Amino acid sequence: MKPRIVVLGCGRIGRMHADNIAAHSKTELAGVFDIDPRSAASVAKRHNVTEFSSTAEAIESPAVDAVLIAAPTSTHVELLEASVNAGKPVLCEKPIDLSLERVNRLKKRIAGSNVPVMLGFVRRFDPGHAAARKAAACGEIGEIHQVIITSRDPGMAPDGYIETSGGIYRDMTIHDLDLARFILDEDIATVSASGSRLVDPQLMVRCNDFDTVTVTLVSESGRQAMITNSRKAIYGYDQRVEIFGSQGMVISGNRRENELTRYGAETTGAAAKLQHFFIERYREAFLAEIDHFAAVVAGQASVPVGFEDGRIALLLADACGLSVAEGRTVRTDELT
Amino acid sequence: MKPRIVVLGCGRIGRMHADNIAAHSKTELAGVFDIDPRSAASVAKRHNVTEFSSTAEAIESPAVDAVLIAAPTSTHVELLEASVNAGKPVLCEKPIDLSLERVNRLKKRIAGSNVPVMLGFVRRFDPGHAAARKAAACGEIGEIHQVIITSRDPGMAPDGYIETSGGIYRDMTIHDLDLARFILDEDIATVSASGSRLVDPQLMVRCNDFDTVTVTLVSESGRQAMITNSRKAIYGYDQRVEIFGSQGMVISGNRRENELTRYGAETTGAAAKLQHFFIERYREAFLAEIDHFAAVVAGQASVPVGFEDGRIALLLADACGLSVAEGRTVRTDELT
Amino acid sequence: MKPRIVVLGCGRIGRMHADNIAAHSKTELAGVFDIDPRSAASVAKRHNVTEFSSTAEAIESPAVDAVLIAAPTSTHVELLEASVNAGKPVLCEKPIDLSLERVNRLKKRIAGSNVPVMLGFVRRFDPGHAAARKAAACGEIGEIHQVIITSRDPGMAPDGYIETSGGIYRDMTIHDLDLARFILDEDIATVSASGSRLVDPQLMVRCNDFDTVTVTLVSESGRQAMITNSRKAIYGYDQRVEIFGSQGMVISGNRRENELTRYGAETTGAAAKLQHFFIERYREAFLAEIDHFAAVVAGQASVPVGFEDGRIALLLADACGLSVAEGRTVRTDELT
Amino acid sequence: MKPRIVVLGCGRIGRMHADNIAAHSKTELAGVFDIDPRSAASVAKRHNVTEFSSTAEAIESPAVDAVLIAAPTSTHVELLEASVNAGKPVLCEKPIDLSLERVNRLKKRIAGSNVPVMLGFVRRFDPGHAAARKAAACGEIGEIHQVIITSRDPGMAPDGYIETSGGIYRDMTIHDLDLARFILDEDIATVSASGSRLVDPQLMVRCNDFDTVTVTLVSESGRQAMITNSRKAIYGYDQRVEIFGSQGMVISGNRRENELTRYGAETTGAAAKLQHFFIERYREAFLAEIDHFAAVVAGQASVPVGFEDGRIALLLADACGLSVAEGRTVRTDELT
Repeated sequence: MKPRIVVLGCGRIGRMHADNIAAHSKTELAGVFDIDPRSAASVAKRHNVTEFSSTAEAIESPAVDAVLIAAPTSTHVELLEASVNAGKPVLCEKPIDLSLERVNRLKKRIAGSNVPVMLGFVRRFDPGHAAARKAAACGEIGEIHQVIITSRDPGMAPDGYIETSGGIYRDMTIHDLDLARFILDEDIATVSASGSRLVDPQLMVRCNDFDTVTVTLVSESGRQAMITNSRKAIYGYDQRVEIFGSQGMVISGNRRENELTRYGAETTGAAAKLQHFFIERYREAFLAEIDHFAAVVAGQASVPVGFEDGRIALLLADACGLSVAEGRTVRTDELT
Repeated sequence: MKPRIVVLGCGRIGRMHADNIAAHSKTELAGVFDIDPRSAASVAKRHNVTEFSSTAEAIESPAVDAVLIAAPTSTHVELLEASVNAGKPVLCEKPIDLSLERVNRLKKRIAGSNVPVMLGFVRRFDPGHAAARKAAACGEIGEIHQVIITSRDPGMAPDGYIETSGGIYRDMTIHDLDLARFILDEDIATVSASGSRLVDPQLMVRCNDFDTVTVTLVSESGRQAMITNSRKAIYGYDQRVEIFGSQGMVISGNRRENELTRYGAETTGAAAKLQHFFIERYREAFLAEIDHFAAVVAGQASVPVGFEDGRIALLLADACGLSVAEGRTVRTDELT
Repeated sequence: MKPRIVVLGCGRIGRMHADNIAAHSKTELAGVFDIDPRSAASVAKRHNVTEFSSTAEAIESPAVDAVLIAAPTSTHVELLEASVNAGKPVLCEKPIDLSLERVNRLKKRIAGSNVPVMLGFVRRFDPGHAAARKAAACGEIGEIHQVIITSRDPGMAPDGYIETSGGIYRDMTIHDLDLARFILDEDIATVSASGSRLVDPQLMVRCNDFDTVTVTLVSESGRQAMITNSRKAIYGYDQRVEIFGSQGMVISGNRRENELTRYGAETTGAAAKLQHFFIERYREAFLAEIDHFAAVVAGQASVPVGFEDGRIALLLADACGLSVAEGRTVRTDELT
Repeated sequence: MKPRIVVLGCGRIGRMHADNIAAHSKTELAGVFDIDPRSAASVAKRHNVTEFSSTAEAIESPAVDAVLIAAPTSTHVELLEASVNAGKPVLCEKPIDLSLERVNRLKKRIAGSNVPVMLGFVRRFDPGHAAARKAAACGEIGEIHQVIITSRDPGMAPDGYIETSGGIYRDMTIHDLDLARFILDEDIATVSASGSRLVDPQLMVRCNDFDTVTVTLVSESGRQAMITNSRKAIYGYDQRVEIFGSQGMVISGNRRENELTRYGAETTGAAAKLQHFFIERYREAFLAEIDHFAAVVAGQASVPVGFEDGRIALLLADACGLSVAEGRTVRTDELT
């Protein structure tokens, strides 16, 4: 029996998940819900599945084995808790919530449950990033000393997005904070961040946010991870991971639209554009994520990235904000 | 209405086409046939489609709108003719046949028909190769002067394959001969080839075949295309196209398993393995081929690569053999 | 008349400078001095030049037009001052001194002089780094937002070196601190650093030093520069500069021993080793540095990188140490 | 004692050799000669060496240990013979002559001599090409199966050059013919060539020459070498060598002006221009060539590439012309 998964939220990422689940040989799309019935109807019709009338109906339906939460961040806590209470495994998009306090309270409430909760940190499943991590984990490069993560979006988020995003650290950097933890495979001891307003200063001042940031994480044993983010790279969606170790280095490079290179009077070896945007760039990763979730729901695998990973990533994001606000290195044990 | 396509032949490539057609949003898999009922049954069951009991039944079924021929080469002429007679558009795997004379006779017999016949020269649809050709066709590199095609298989074909392949020029080089014509977009005037036995000399002597060949084509206006083939490249499936023109050059390079590079004590920047094998390497191309065929069947597009392209590619392959046998440059008008 | 330059200090870098000056078409080697007469004699003999018996004799000699200081760091202040007092233009290897206070006092003493003092921040003259900086300065990538500098040595410094080096920030990072200033072309407002002991923890504890560090600089207008250093990269001397701007990015990559790439059963496209070590990697840069110095001595050019650049780089290095010691972001105006 | 080498011919390449010999630590420039006294005087003055009044005076001078012939091709035979007769080792620029018959006669005349004669096939000394050849010779890629040489000039030769060049095969392809022999390390059995007029058809018709050619060489054991030449590559001096073997592949790639790559709205990873022109691109190779010649003159090394190599390369060039003229594969034993 294939697990029947319902998708809550039919925005861009919810639609993609619904399509992936429907096309996947090991999963079945059990239905969809969106606060906007037209969005839900469109997806439901395309895949000929149920359009639920409420999240409660979707979660509690006996025709639903598992829940994928792709609704707005503000609803995650409630939906996640309801799913756990209904005994339905959950795959929840990041972040769990914008408030570490709310996440901590939820943690206590679901503490006794053994319902699997998986977090949508999709980059862990990228073939290149995962191969880099695997090489490091297998000792191919000896002991890890430094991790350099470059993550730049191809363009400023659409109007209105930044205002409700929770700030760049919780919204964008959080992916890289999780990726750094995943690669270092060790607790982070300290966080030091910088934040600048260079892409759209006016918007950033208005939102009290930054568009260009750096983060330095140091693990308990002194390993370092550096993150570089920008809201706008004109050359495209820049996604790179470098792992430097005592016996070598591996780099997971950018993916391009095709393998063409051009030679002309001015330049040589000019390659194609970078894959645009995250749905294209991380297509294989999103498919692998559903693969893993299907195995989790089927009881064939443990959760590869769970609630606590989501909570710690949020804690690190908050530590970034605190570091910038107070101009200092923040110890992670200052936050809880 | 989606065109309903039947797949004749359920070997490796037939299975792949059946999967692609079934998964494609614009096509429907109408059923399958294979001389070995178990092969057919396996595919039919997976997609829950009809398993036809004969090619005739499949071709003539009112539930079939179009035919994809992936059966052994020796059956292509018969199946192609039957499909045309039944008024069903055909997508036929290369080569049409191993005998140019039989192909010429078939050509006469189907001359009056307007049923679309498309040939499976899949490399025309590869995103990289197609982008290279498009850049050239758009004048981005001026007039084309030289085309360099490298095509090396990752390993010797399975036992028994070489014996019935028709020889490397008709079996393997034919892809590159078509690709050269596609890129040059001009008639080929002369053919000069070499053939060596370096990978498996004993087998090659027994089959009167070669495993390592080169071909030089010169078009009517003097443009040159050079092809390099080997039956075995230990580093993987090597597929490159270089187009050199008066105003620049474009290169469609190899595709790798992922974007990882490695740095160690001995080497730097070592990249991942090349994608293995043609079904992986040309996955997007096979999908695009079905896309085009769907549009052809729907009457929305003309045939991008047709019967005459298949016939000329075979003629060029025969010219290669003749060139090697007689140690001379062969004019294409010597063969017809 | 070619400027006659004396080289003080005949260690590895002094010998290289002497060779470069002797071979250069626009300069003449006036002689050499080293505290160890054998070192001096060897160089003097090779180039058939005077072996001075003291630094004073060398600096004051009427046969000397200019002075290159490649003696131990502890002698720089004295030799630099003597040269300025003698009216001889100076090219001084970095750092000026390990004590910012001493440098500040020297600054006051030579404040009234117009004798050119040039600092040996050789990376400014590297063709790749300089081309990257030039592209940025010309507006090719719009406004600079982020600079990422990777600098890793191929192996731990020889025994006894670390103990007297002044610490990694003053000894190694100082090159990158200057390079960041050079590229940003703007005053640095804040410094935040991390320091770890991963390569040789025992030695680092004994010397109260670090072998693996990161630095984040933020300029007055919020531009960011991140530096990554390690004392030991097993794959070689890793020297990269990335400049990310509002309209694009330029990367000055590593240099390799040759242009060979290898393809085998395990990897594809494996490139050659990185050039080893700084004398090889920055060979062209060292030559260009002498070029500039020759033009400065000849009065044909102003000093491209001067005393104040050396002083500020040292100040930034001290700010790194303070940042780590106090776990906070340091404002550069805290130090003077 | 350093060997004292005289340079005959002070054109572009003669001047370069004179400069290299003068700067080289193991050689001494003994003087120069050019039919145009102003050319000779300029070089003689720069290096403060003798300007000989005739080739005979130069060759026979007791102050000359060895001769470098960089005079026009038509004088090579005479100068080479005179040098051998004078017992002076020779380094002669390619080709020995445009007439195979004259070369054969010279061969007989100098047959008894043991005076070293070295040919200026500089590409054998290129670090990248040599490393590729060495990897192949060491068995790193198993048995060699195919060699692909790409050699394209950055622009049509200056006015008047083509007319007296002896044709592209003897003038330009000859370098690649020698390089193919060097790499294959085996006698060439057959030659097949094509020739087109695409860059400057009018000039080529007038000179009965080609500007765009391909050559296929097959060795006695069936190994293949393919050469691609063009008189004009707008993107620069394209010099690549690929060696494909049973256990892998090595590629000696192009050299660029620096290591900069650019990322913008249209392309990513655009590299710098190729090094322009042969004096720059093969700078290290020309220096290594002088190194070898110095060792030969000093009796410390045997001739790495000699008279017979020059003769066979010319023979292969003539076979190319014959192949095109007669539209057939030419056996090398047809020419002698």
